[in-house]
Amino acid sequence: PIRGGGPGAAAALGAIAALVRSAGSGHHRLPHTGATRFEDRSKAIPAAALAAEDAELLHRLLASGSVRLRVTLGCHFESDVQSANVIGEAPGREPGELVITGAHLDSWDLATGALDDGAGVGVVLATAHALLDPALRPRRTVRVVLFMNEEAGLDGARAYAKDHAGEIARTVAALESDTGSGAPVSVGTSAPQSAVETLRPYLAPLAALGVAGPRTIDEAGADLLMLQAGGVPVAGVEQDVFDYFEWHHTAADTVDKLDARSLALTAGVFAVLVRALAEWSGRLPPPPAPPHFKAWAAPPAKPVAR
Amino acid sequence: PIRGGGPGAAAALGAIAALVRSAGSGHHRLPHTGATRFEDRSKAIPAAALAAEDAELLHRLLASGSVRLRVTLGCHFESDVQSANVIGEAPGREPGELVITGAHLDSWDLATGALDDGAGVGVVLATAHALLDPALRPRRTVRVVLFMNEEAGLDGARAYAKDHAGEIARTVAALESDTGSGAPVSVGTSAPQSAVETLRPYLAPLAALGVAGPRTIDEAGADLLMLQAGGVPVAGVEQDVFDYFEWHHTAADTVDKLDARSLALTAGVFAVLVRALAEWSGRLPPPPAPPHFKAWAAPPAKPVAR
Repeated sequence: PIRGGGPGAAAALGAIAALVRSAGSGHHRLPHTGATRFEDRSKAIPAAALAAEDAELLHRLLASGSVRLRVTLGCHFESDVQSANVIGEAPGREPGELVITGAHLDSWDLATGALDDGAGVGVVLATAHALLDPALRPRRTVRVVLFMNEEAGLDGARAYAKDHAGEIARTVAALESDTGSGAPVSVGTSAPQSAVETLRPYLAPLAALGVAGPRTIDEAGADLLMLQAGGVPVAGVEQDVFDYFEWHHTAADTVDKLDARSLALTAGVFAVLVRALAEWSGRLPPPPAPPHFKAWAAPPAKPVAR
Repeated sequence: PIRGGGPGAAAALGAIAALVRSAGSGHHRLPHTGATRFEDRSKAIPAAALAAEDAELLHRLLASGSVRLRVTLGCHFESDVQSANVIGEAPGREPGELVITGAHLDSWDLATGALDDGAGVGVVLATAHALLDPALRPRRTVRVVLFMNEEAGLDGARAYAKDHAGEIARTVAALESDTGSGAPVSVGTSAPQSAVETLRPYLAPLAALGVAGPRTIDEAGADLLMLQAGGVPVAGVEQDVFDYFEWHHTAADTVDKLDARSLALTAGVFAVLVRALAEWSGRLPPPPAPPHFKAWAAPPAKPVAR
């Protein structure tokens, strides 16, 4: 909320620019980037993140009196370019119904985005690869959607929801893997507990891994907000994010941060959950509206330098 | 050795520039700076540190074949300017003999140098402050020397040793505090164990803090190399450096990294050791030559771009 909404709140109060303390948990003088939203687009202003250390210095100076600060931003917006979601399928034994497994291809430009969201792309590709095995092939088709431009406005998610609106009725669930390479903790769906009693036996393999659930969750990934708002139930794997925000959206989100063992466990759990939803004879009920949908219903405004 | 001597070794083999994997223990895409020496000054070449993550990327690329790399360095040398060591004394009860307690005022320019060496400056000032208390005032004078330009060539140390050469015979010990704010682990002197038996009772307060020693140590700080080579015995406090090299010589060496409690403990232990050496009737024997003296006997060469 501070990162995404802070500059908008400052702009509403008349600020001409906004500096935000980095929202990550790192303490290595790294600024933490991320999307910023302005409810009133005509009041969009330049905004930047300070590393935690520099924000603390600023607070110490402010405690001693007023501070005059010169802000020079070297960043700028380029024109939009044509890009694409990448979509593939592990066909089910029966035609018609779909389970969507998403991740996103883009990352913030400070680093390569190994955790956000290279890890997720790996998880959903591993799931599809597993379910192409004839011995595991489920009843329903599993569709992999690698969304484009999650970070700067959910453009791929918006385009997918629009282009595939006719398939919503036969999309039984949508999942996204987008929380790094931490160990799996629990699985969840947007359904009340009473609606998933007959799904539980399909999730039995998870007990041996100490993975809880299915819990009831509000949302399952930013790229799924439009689908969920359109009536598609969502599901997901909750991971240990203890150190995720030490590197997330910083220059240090590089491939060495991936924990191979816990990432493999997450991929296995994701595959079990996807297969359960694709094999199960039941369907999750229509979900409640996702709490974060309103903020992302429209693409973000580009700030105007003033 | 890799940081300080790697570029020189590469130059001797004909390299026109050198990239070194950052020698710190951090994993946050931070380059780690530090002094570099060239035995043959006419072969000094530009050198830079890569963050560990970028060095690993380069290794992965090299494993796939030859790599063409463009190096653009924005740094440059400025002319030398006049600066100064800062020297003060806590006078002893008897005139003549001195115990030197050093730290250094400069830091690498990526950050404010809170750990290296703001912490050490605090430790030696705290020691001097304590020994100005009439109840604690020792027999010998304790001289605080805040050395200038330790990092880029030991210029202050060299100037002090030259300007105060006439005092060497009455300088009974020199100490430096230059290893961050970690907890104190042990104390040491350049003397063999047999030479400090009568010093041990003065160090009795350290046992309650779990601090070991006095051990026999080779060196006690870069700024003391010239004094030690000139015959001044050295002593020091060994600290826990478990996380020191995560921040040392990087942009993240800022004041929030100081651990107030362990820094206070170190200052207390330093003061006990200094007071012991200043009160004790004995003297440490002349020390062996410091192993690192040769590398620093002359100031470092400025690289020549070619």
